[in-house]
Amino acid sequence: MDIKGHVSQQAQKAREASRHLAVLSSEIKNNALRAMADALVSEEKSLISENQKDLENAKSQGLAPALFERLTLNPKRIHDMAKGLLEVSALPDPVGEVVRMWRRPNGMEVGKMRVPIGVIGIIYESRPNVTADAASLCLKSGNAVVLRGGSEAIHSNRKIAELLIQAGVQAGLPPDSIGFIQTPDREAVLHLLKQDRTIDLIIPRGGEGLIQFVSEHSTIPVIKHDKGVCHTYIDEHADIEMAKKISFNAKVQRPATCNAMETLLVHEGVASAFLPPMISEFQKAGVEIRGCPKTQAIVAGIHQATEEDWGTEYLSNILAVKVVKDMDTAITHMETYGSHHSEAIVTQDYARAMAFLRRVDASAVFVNASTRLSDGYQFGLGAEIGISTTRIHARGPMGLEELTSLKFIVLGNGQVRG
Amino acid sequence: MDIKGHVSQQAQKAREASRHLAVLSSEIKNNALRAMADALVSEEKSLISENQKDLENAKSQGLAPALFERLTLNPKRIHDMAKGLLEVSALPDPVGEVVRMWRRPNGMEVGKMRVPIGVIGIIYESRPNVTADAASLCLKSGNAVVLRGGSEAIHSNRKIAELLIQAGVQAGLPPDSIGFIQTPDREAVLHLLKQDRTIDLIIPRGGEGLIQFVSEHSTIPVIKHDKGVCHTYIDEHADIEMAKKISFNAKVQRPATCNAMETLLVHEGVASAFLPPMISEFQKAGVEIRGCPKTQAIVAGIHQATEEDWGTEYLSNILAVKVVKDMDTAITHMETYGSHHSEAIVTQDYARAMAFLRRVDASAVFVNASTRLSDGYQFGLGAEIGISTTRIHARGPMGLEELTSLKFIVLGNGQVRG
Repeated sequence: MDIKGHVSQQAQKAREASRHLAVLSSEIKNNALRAMADALVSEEKSLISENQKDLENAKSQGLAPALFERLTLNPKRIHDMAKGLLEVSALPDPVGEVVRMWRRPNGMEVGKMRVPIGVIGIIYESRPNVTADAASLCLKSGNAVVLRGGSEAIHSNRKIAELLIQAGVQAGLPPDSIGFIQTPDREAVLHLLKQDRTIDLIIPRGGEGLIQFVSEHSTIPVIKHDKGVCHTYIDEHADIEMAKKISFNAKVQRPATCNAMETLLVHEGVASAFLPPMISEFQKAGVEIRGCPKTQAIVAGIHQATEEDWGTEYLSNILAVKVVKDMDTAITHMETYGSHHSEAIVTQDYARAMAFLRRVDASAVFVNASTRLSDGYQFGLGAEIGISTTRIHARGPMGLEELTSLKFIVLGNGQVRG
Repeated sequence: MDIKGHVSQQAQKAREASRHLAVLSSEIKNNALRAMADALVSEEKSLISENQKDLENAKSQGLAPALFERLTLNPKRIHDMAKGLLEVSALPDPVGEVVRMWRRPNGMEVGKMRVPIGVIGIIYESRPNVTADAASLCLKSGNAVVLRGGSEAIHSNRKIAELLIQAGVQAGLPPDSIGFIQTPDREAVLHLLKQDRTIDLIIPRGGEGLIQFVSEHSTIPVIKHDKGVCHTYIDEHADIEMAKKISFNAKVQRPATCNAMETLLVHEGVASAFLPPMISEFQKAGVEIRGCPKTQAIVAGIHQATEEDWGTEYLSNILAVKVVKDMDTAITHMETYGSHHSEAIVTQDYARAMAFLRRVDASAVFVNASTRLSDGYQFGLGAEIGISTTRIHARGPMGLEELTSLKFIVLGNGQVRG
């Protein structure tokens, strides 16, 4: 296979399709999304059988449990994928919205109109559901997409893409709205990253290695979906029961995700009351605790956290715990060791809640809620193409709006520049 | 001089400053901007004398007239720079604005809050006023900035930066809010483009060579301010007098700018009525016309436009003219040869105006107005850091809002993920 040719052809075709997609009616786009959902559900068996091939390969290669779990497709997950497509079809079409319009002294009206970005390249690992999520969000927002999934999910991804493309074309989409890179060869990624004349934005989703590779080699703008070293800070004015519930959920509900908590920061004023029952609850759930000296002094038999622990995204049942003297120290800790992903405070103090909201530099800042809620569906975006840790264009969960940009429009009646 | 060390130190210091700037009060930022304006005006003479050094170098190196004109500082331009700073100080502070907030079924409130991007690197050529514009917009929007002007304006830029930094610090800004790369060596640009741990966004402003160099080497997201091959399409339902006024302004008022018209597209239904008086007016103003065969048939003695002409940004008194059979052909021409910068239609037909607005893929789309109005001041943004031709984050003139991004905020009362 001519990898370079295949990649640039996929990108070029997507560019052509994007011109038609940008002005396609909402009705056609929505019909296509519904047809895609039907196709996934009615082909459930063949999807699971393709997924089985990937899982067997994964097993023989000894993939880490967290990654294996992400790779698995079952009827529920397929149903969820289809449901995601239907939800996206039911969302308002963002394209063409005029978000604001104002009048200038010379009488012209200036406004901003929401338009598709153009062609989006998605480079991802592990989760096959990204194929459907990414395609649906790109299409609904009027963008063409070029998909490049990981080699570990090639069979699942290829089958999903095939079903989506087939259903989409039958419903009236331009045939090349969804491009799919057929080869698992990493060289293909390198070529994809150089298609700056045909691709407008690259969204990588995967491990640090992939993100770094993409950032280093891309001549196309990149929105990173980087690691999440997320913190929950338990303030001295926290409701202790709420703090326990939120902390437990943030760590235990699904530890393999980027918005799971990695470090628990506890105000020294509540540490003695909060930590013993909290840590006992964590330990019952199989969570290994690594604590600072103060934590060790409060609860016996805990391993000491090293400097490295504070910056680690465990993606598993390990939690670092640190007792801090105040909110400032907690925020400084987040800035020093965190990844600006999702951060939470638990407090009943109004002024502290407001200060935390403004001061903490993260893509999502929570008061009295679990960082696990940092998610496109949970936020009501309809779906999610990833959680941006880049500081431009979009921060945090990206849905439909985040896949568009705004062009200026001017309604004049003969205005010129003086 | 240790160029690499100097660059990374400037970037690192700016990063530190950015943490303080992000939470600085509007009052301190506005006082600083006013103090900077005062400093520029009161140091007018020394500024002009520093600029004189640059102009003499430019003369001896035979800089192109358009570039020489951009480089020149005079009392009016210095006054305009100071006025720009005052205007920015008078604008509302974008930081902290909650642009939207909605309630989820689980009772949590999710919103988006405007925050600074962080540290912005500006790499520019020629115009010394960019130094003041860029610094003022970055500061007002809570960002630290690292400035890297062209070697041809090093004396002017250095003096402006010195005055701004001095006045800013006296007014209470963190000392490293404005970084300035002292060396004219191009190697410094290369190092700047690799500071992805401390700089969040690079904005290049300059010729194609610079833009390409920056795009190829940057590991930091880049928002390009690329060339403008702008069109004006005269529809068959145009008001002919308005069409003449707008076309003349778009070409002649300041041909050296990126939003000046390079190609005039004329519907064949009005070509015979419109072109003879229009071309005669252009020729009287010293504009050289290069026409398609149909244009040549209507007006005698015109050079034929080559294929290359359609894609050229002249930046001078040359205009390509093409007669087209309808609006579709005009839009296809723009897509084929244009740069998606600023495009205009002149028409009295409502449906055509609306279709043009939606369909044309450009950072700014005009109905019945001159493309020369594609500008931050003209649009009411208070000032302008450039005109983005990138398709993410911001398209078209970038002012204060475009130098911020939105983080998610969540106000909960104990919500967890189920």
